[in-house]
Amino acid sequence: MKDALIIFDTTLRDGEQSPGASMTRDEKLRIARQLERMRVDVIEAGFAAASNGDFEAVRTIAEAIKESTVCSLARANENDIRRSGEAIRPAARGRIHTFIATSPIHMEKKLRMTPDQVVEQAVKAIGWAREYTDDVEFSAEDAGRSDIDFLVRIFDAVIKAGAKTINVPDTVGYNVPEQYAATIRTLIERVPNSDKVIWSVHCHNDLGLAVSNSLAAVMAGARQVECTINGLGERAGNASLEEIVMAVRTRADVFPVESRIDTTQIVPASRLVSQITGYPVQPNKAIVGANAFAHESGIHQDGVLKHRETYEIMRAEDVGWGANKLVLGKHSGRNAFRARLLELGIEIGSEEQLNLAFARFKELADKKHEIFDQDLHALASDEAITPEFEHYRLVSTRFHSETGETPLAEITLTAGGRETHSKSSGSGPVDAAFKAIESVAASGTELLLYSVNAITTGTDAQGEVTVRLARDGRIVNGQGSDTDIIVASAKAYLNALNKLHAGSEKLNPQV
Amino acid sequence: MKDALIIFDTTLRDGEQSPGASMTRDEKLRIARQLERMRVDVIEAGFAAASNGDFEAVRTIAEAIKESTVCSLARANENDIRRSGEAIRPAARGRIHTFIATSPIHMEKKLRMTPDQVVEQAVKAIGWAREYTDDVEFSAEDAGRSDIDFLVRIFDAVIKAGAKTINVPDTVGYNVPEQYAATIRTLIERVPNSDKVIWSVHCHNDLGLAVSNSLAAVMAGARQVECTINGLGERAGNASLEEIVMAVRTRADVFPVESRIDTTQIVPASRLVSQITGYPVQPNKAIVGANAFAHESGIHQDGVLKHRETYEIMRAEDVGWGANKLVLGKHSGRNAFRARLLELGIEIGSEEQLNLAFARFKELADKKHEIFDQDLHALASDEAITPEFEHYRLVSTRFHSETGETPLAEITLTAGGRETHSKSSGSGPVDAAFKAIESVAASGTELLLYSVNAITTGTDAQGEVTVRLARDGRIVNGQGSDTDIIVASAKAYLNALNKLHAGSEKLNPQV
Repeated sequence: MKDALIIFDTTLRDGEQSPGASMTRDEKLRIARQLERMRVDVIEAGFAAASNGDFEAVRTIAEAIKESTVCSLARANENDIRRSGEAIRPAARGRIHTFIATSPIHMEKKLRMTPDQVVEQAVKAIGWAREYTDDVEFSAEDAGRSDIDFLVRIFDAVIKAGAKTINVPDTVGYNVPEQYAATIRTLIERVPNSDKVIWSVHCHNDLGLAVSNSLAAVMAGARQVECTINGLGERAGNASLEEIVMAVRTRADVFPVESRIDTTQIVPASRLVSQITGYPVQPNKAIVGANAFAHESGIHQDGVLKHRETYEIMRAEDVGWGANKLVLGKHSGRNAFRARLLELGIEIGSEEQLNLAFARFKELADKKHEIFDQDLHALASDEAITPEFEHYRLVSTRFHSETGETPLAEITLTAGGRETHSKSSGSGPVDAAFKAIESVAASGTELLLYSVNAITTGTDAQGEVTVRLARDGRIVNGQGSDTDIIVASAKAYLNALNKLHAGSEKLNPQV
Repeated sequence: MKDALIIFDTTLRDGEQSPGASMTRDEKLRIARQLERMRVDVIEAGFAAASNGDFEAVRTIAEAIKESTVCSLARANENDIRRSGEAIRPAARGRIHTFIATSPIHMEKKLRMTPDQVVEQAVKAIGWAREYTDDVEFSAEDAGRSDIDFLVRIFDAVIKAGAKTINVPDTVGYNVPEQYAATIRTLIERVPNSDKVIWSVHCHNDLGLAVSNSLAAVMAGARQVECTINGLGERAGNASLEEIVMAVRTRADVFPVESRIDTTQIVPASRLVSQITGYPVQPNKAIVGANAFAHESGIHQDGVLKHRETYEIMRAEDVGWGANKLVLGKHSGRNAFRARLLELGIEIGSEEQLNLAFARFKELADKKHEIFDQDLHALASDEAITPEFEHYRLVSTRFHSETGETPLAEITLTAGGRETHSKSSGSGPVDAAFKAIESVAASGTELLLYSVNAITTGTDAQGEVTVRLARDGRIVNGQGSDTDIIVASAKAYLNALNKLHAGSEKLNPQV
């Protein structure tokens, strides 16, 4: 019997720290439901003390999720921990994950604390956390650059205080596998009662080694891996959940562990996260990239099936490729629509919202023959903007471009409920549309990124546009989808402006 | 003094085997020049025997490149090797890389040869290759699933026959680091005269382990790594050149080797390959992703510089971020334009082609204030379509869309020199444009992918559209760029149709 490998997903916490990847509470809940469906062991739902919005998101997920443990991150101070404790209170199984920096540079420059004070604070933190739950995880921030003797000392102290999981993050992505594995092995050997806790790893991908560092640590005794869907996360991201899970499964002959993950939910999870955050997945990404299972050579050869045996080490079906089913068409009714949304974990709050979403679905079905699950996710993303966020709303558009003439856009929108009309020319219709919007909004933002992906195949596919705007150091991603790419662009731009208009600052911890 | 790590780039051979990533000879030459500028040791320029086009591409690169070794792949048969030998003849330093399958399943099912016959054939192949060059590399295809005793036997035989580099590929991406390193270590120990040759590795990324497998092999004695820019390649791709190079450099304390690579050329190379192949790089890709050096947390904190020391392990400038210089504007002259193209390694053949490109540059400069290097690459890609490929050419367009009406496109194009006009409605202006084109072309193709990326920032950026079409098992990518996204889409669609119209089948080996 193999050991269980605990899959700890932090897409909603560390993944959300990617520039512009902030999600609304409803978006987080949709992802959490998909993670539960995938049988993730622990969902890190957020950092409850970061803002009221984060607290609400963690609490909502704690209420909704029954099968996975729901976790909140907390710095090692009383306020953070009590906020986390309150947020996870409704959970069937709740965890508090508290951290403090242990490297000399961080203790001295960031915390301005002595090593003795750091140990004392960590022990206190475990105590506060245990008032809420027995499932307490402790992380040593920047463990990779910490003194090993100090790590042994602080881990010993927090285990005595009741921590059940000890996490050793590679915060800056500097480790290489052999060395990281050696660190884990040494800690397990030297820390008293190390066999009474779960050893966990959390790796960043700056050198492209997050997955292999995690796997090397598993060979050395780690039994929890912290990871994200699509490897989302700050900078080069975190270890990819899908690569960890499939490496362990495909090489069951090598790894002494197995995960509980339902691997057929991997591709749907990847698409959902990509769609909500606006972060695309490159085609040559392992497991979830569009080409991961496409063989160019195979296409030109006889006996593709024979070829497949010869070259494939995993089956596309096993990770959920081909699960994008044709579900609805223009004759589908309101009940079928609602039922499919529920199956996809998309919650439409009120009857009124359902009516609005159904009207948009009918409108879409008129333009597009076949409606796929991904179209519904896009529609839900469009609808999920709660009214308090909607300062700007698109009413109608008109575009014209012609060789030899300057492209023109006319836009009618409401700003704070008041309808305004504007008109602009531009170097192209998208440029003209953005300029027409700016002539009303005068937002003073900078456009950092513009990208479009077709959601489904075929020329009548919806385009999903992502726009990334920056103002005064804040970065937001806006999404918009429509069968008309210019309309989708205008929606995405307004969505980003709405986020800037509504949003507030928040803290992002480094673990 | 550290050992040299030989960087063998196979973007132009294994990278080109990605679905739809076929490149024209001129595109390959532009990438080869960038690889030379980056000080890549060996450029695998193609598989000369695959087609006349591949032969010409290898030969052109062999003529142009002076600083890097130019290599052609060849199966272990006389015709393949003689074609490769002819193609690399003009090179300052030329290499032939020959391969044969050594796993039981491949020898039996694909080659239908006995092990003795395979060894005999391999030895003959080295002999033929040595008629052209002393720099001969031998690969054991599917080495990962081959019997180790047989590998020792065949490597011993080819070294005696004169092979100078022995490559051990993980063809199907099945290996894990410790095990792959053990294989390399065992081979180096057991193969006679192993110290007289360079041991090379070639890893695929199906489990996300290509880079770490390569690095583990380096720790075990390998001194050549085969890799690609952006990790391009079939399925989940090959090991990423940029991750290998930066891991070895950043962790100089661990790795006993150093590469010659000019790391400041990494980001320009990444963008060039992405632009030419139409393969985007995801933002959270290590080293070359848009976010690789962006710290979300940092943005909200005081003392970003202090923070940077605390969290950064590499400097963005060291890998070429920020190298996208403002170079030209609407008042730039023809000479400045030509000079910048030369600096970028973009060759415009005739005066007539230069005039045409300059006219398009002026047109672009009228619409867009600032022209960046990336705009010039896009313009060159537009121009690089040689006339024999241009069955279809866009003459003029007219688009109109308006809320409540069906989007309309009118397109005038030439097909085989004859001008035709067509008109169509669609679910959006892009759909309408594609339908208008199809009403003339009636190509019977399927649209597999549609994506847009802004080439530079700002709302007046050019959109670069990639369209992937499939017909009868053939897949092509078309690119088009314009400040008007609908025009760029029409150009990309026609570019893909032109490739389908001109193209011929070719062989893609599995190494």
